[in-house]
Amino acid sequence: MKILGIDSSGMVASVALIEDGITKAEYTVNNKKTHSQTLLPMLDEISAMLEDDMSTVDAIAVAAGPGSFTGLRIGSATVKGLAAAYDKPVIPVPTVEGLAYNAWGSDRLVCPMMDARRQQTYTGLYEFTGEGDTCVMNTVLDQCAVPVEDIVDKINELGRPVIFMGDGIPVFEEYIKNNCKVDHIFAPAHMNRQRAACIAALGEVYMKQGRIEAAEDHAPVYLRMSQAERERKEQGVADQGHDN
Amino acid sequence: MKILGIDSSGMVASVALIEDGITKAEYTVNNKKTHSQTLLPMLDEISAMLEDDMSTVDAIAVAAGPGSFTGLRIGSATVKGLAAAYDKPVIPVPTVEGLAYNAWGSDRLVCPMMDARRQQTYTGLYEFTGEGDTCVMNTVLDQCAVPVEDIVDKINELGRPVIFMGDGIPVFEEYIKNNCKVDHIFAPAHMNRQRAACIAALGEVYMKQGRIEAAEDHAPVYLRMSQAERERKEQGVADQGHDN
Repeated sequence: MKILGIDSSGMVASVALIEDGITKAEYTVNNKKTHSQTLLPMLDEISAMLEDDMSTVDAIAVAAGPGSFTGLRIGSATVKGLAAAYDKPVIPVPTVEGLAYNAWGSDRLVCPMMDARRQQTYTGLYEFTGEGDTCVMNTVLDQCAVPVEDIVDKINELGRPVIFMGDGIPVFEEYIKNNCKVDHIFAPAHMNRQRAACIAALGEVYMKQGRIEAAEDHAPVYLRMSQAERERKEQGVADQGHDN
Repeated sequence: MKILGIDSSGMVASVALIEDGITKAEYTVNNKKTHSQTLLPMLDEISAMLEDDMSTVDAIAVAAGPGSFTGLRIGSATVKGLAAAYDKPVIPVPTVEGLAYNAWGSDRLVCPMMDARRQQTYTGLYEFTGEGDTCVMNTVLDQCAVPVEDIVDKINELGRPVIFMGDGIPVFEEYIKNNCKVDHIFAPAHMNRQRAACIAALGEVYMKQGRIEAAEDHAPVYLRMSQAERERKEQGVADQGHDN
């Protein structure tokens, strides 16, 4: 099985190719460059390095939201284009689940936190349970957009040790330290942000469960209205589904 | 703190830059291309993508062995050159420890296994223990070159659940499945091979402990003689410290 993974849901742009249980290539950049200028050149780069043609993949997994509206649309457009051209299915991987997959195998509750602005976080809760010689990730709380207070309350209520990661941590760290009553740790640099290899590896699991879609059916999941949509709504203008 | 990480100890060539607890860029390729042709172009690539100059790093962490003799020498030569040019220290990270860092935060015993040929594996045993809001990795068994039987015996003796990773797994998986008597899982595609972000993140920990050296003092740790050295020895020729 050969899966291409793409994540442009946040500041990170990341592409990866996994094949038969190994990461063949991964390229991740975390800076302010526009993803529309980086994703395709990064894909070209790894194709050249691998001397491999991406048309040979079995499917394309993408971080399907939530996240930056612009980032998600660039990722979505890229994946739809590639999947249509290569006639391959798309595997939509919820962004928060992809982030949680960084902590694969942990005995802790896994809590990714993305900065959703407006004092909210895109978050969720996950756990790994052993299954034979591997682990499966189970959802404890589905990904959602909530105030940080709500998710920390939920974690305190569950009372289990937790591991946090994501670009929401620098924003909410002080609040977490002051209010999280259970044993908690923060993931380090090599596992606290989006990675396309996580999207591809989790995508492979979902593909085996039949969770795929056609290129033309794929659309990102925003979980919230964009700023432009909110402003139009507040102004009483009909939503035309644009921008952020 | 800004750390450049490099790993060319095995089939994987990987470079990464971490800064203030975040992976700014990581580029990993796992194929048969010669590392001497890939490492520097990959470094140039991430520099260009980040619009950043590698001379601004605080230190250069390198997978310092064991591993492929040729791969280690290419990595070592590259790091010595960069560190001398930029006047920065080198952080030598034992390869097996870097591999184990993939499983950061795991409650299991961590057992990386690299294929060392001749029915041996470069391996070791590690565990993570919580410390405040983070974890530290402790060595249970220092990295060594042993027959697979020895390490599996040791794991059975310790009797703790274990997670395996590394390019030795495809080679020894059957033996492990038949002989490992404790609960064991195999790490998935996104965390079962060398990653420069692991080397850089663990390198930062070691730097804070003062475990650095000058460029001119750095040399890889092979753990075993190279094939050429063995053959020369068997032929009674004086070891001239060459090749593999």
